[in-house]
Amino acid sequence: MHKEHHVTSSEIIRDVVIGMSDGLTVPFALAAGLSGAVSSSALIVTAGIAEIVAGSIAMGLGGFLAGRTEVDHYNSELKREYNEVEQVPEQEKAEVKEVFAGFGLSVGLQDQIADELSKDKKKWVDFMMKYELGLEEPNPNRATKSAFTIGVSYIVGGIIPLSPYLIIHTAQEALYYSCGVTLICLFIFGYFKSKLTGQPALSGAFKVVVIGALAAGAAFGMAKLINGG
Amino acid sequence: MHKEHHVTSSEIIRDVVIGMSDGLTVPFALAAGLSGAVSSSALIVTAGIAEIVAGSIAMGLGGFLAGRTEVDHYNSELKREYNEVEQVPEQEKAEVKEVFAGFGLSVGLQDQIADELSKDKKKWVDFMMKYELGLEEPNPNRATKSAFTIGVSYIVGGIIPLSPYLIIHTAQEALYYSCGVTLICLFIFGYFKSKLTGQPALSGAFKVVVIGALAAGAAFGMAKLINGG
Repeated sequence: MHKEHHVTSSEIIRDVVIGMSDGLTVPFALAAGLSGAVSSSALIVTAGIAEIVAGSIAMGLGGFLAGRTEVDHYNSELKREYNEVEQVPEQEKAEVKEVFAGFGLSVGLQDQIADELSKDKKKWVDFMMKYELGLEEPNPNRATKSAFTIGVSYIVGGIIPLSPYLIIHTAQEALYYSCGVTLICLFIFGYFKSKLTGQPALSGAFKVVVIGALAAGAAFGMAKLINGG
Repeated sequence: MHKEHHVTSSEIIRDVVIGMSDGLTVPFALAAGLSGAVSSSALIVTAGIAEIVAGSIAMGLGGFLAGRTEVDHYNSELKREYNEVEQVPEQEKAEVKEVFAGFGLSVGLQDQIADELSKDKKKWVDFMMKYELGLEEPNPNRATKSAFTIGVSYIVGGIIPLSPYLIIHTAQEALYYSCGVTLICLFIFGYFKSKLTGQPALSGAFKVVVIGALAAGAAFGMAKLINGG
């Protein structure tokens, strides 16, 4: 039997990718930037941890609320569609026909589809939700899990660039190790992320590294500039 | 004529929301966190600007690459579908029927739809892309605009919580003003964001404020803890 291999990356992986890619990049660039302005690693660790705490809460809770909003939005549109198939069924049938007119089906066939579909209100509404409005039913439990996964991934990602500053007391020296370890991790991360989303792995990895390096370089340069170079 | 008022927020607004909600929250929380550990505003300004630079690049470029990836993904799936309707048309017809079987249409009607649809290969592939795979054709120019909008929104958002530290030299004093101005801005931002996405505006605004306050409070507490309270 013929089997299709379309790309479907799981939602958990998507959340890990979202959290970790920002977690690796932003605390890394912040620490690099501060290394251009202060010499004590202790201060950079404080700033880095404050950033990781702030970023993980903002992203995690942000993800949670976005998920909740999606569920609310879906439910309110669902209610509206149920009302509409009750109150203006002819209008809703015309909308079903419009969908198929768009794909060049004959008027006769459009009518048949609309008639058959309208016999089962639940399926009719399902059809309108999915194909008129483009809305998939969200999983109500996903918001919590998603928040947690994104938040934890951000923390895990953020600890990596910060770790050299925990061990080495001179910021400028720690910066070299932070760059080394983070760019390697960004490369590995970008490689697997690209593999999982069905993109060319090497160029994907390279892109992720470039974003991290650019962000860190720009933050470093800006911090030096503010402090009179 | 009956008119439907389904919610459609424009893509630019979505990008502004993405950039600004993180821009207002994370630099705010970072500055608040550092205010718990250092007394000089100058250092907080340096860290804050380094963070804004890093965050706007990471988010902006991240958005740009995500957009490019979406275009690439769409095009590779499109090519695959064209190959499939050429090489395994019966299998693809069966997939069309499956879609409509899911909505409870009769087998006879499923056959008619598959037959009519398969007469025009372009429309057939369009149908498969949209309804089997759930993929909308992305606008190839959007990635650049999206990157720019997200990046600039992050910078605009980030400057707000940082501005009191630019004027007031004692960090602990600047913190009060930063909290005041940022929480007000988060409220206004959350209010309009909720309006635009069709959510209850007041509770939406409240949620955004709570995330910001929690992130800042946690960052402050953590920074105090690291520095021995």
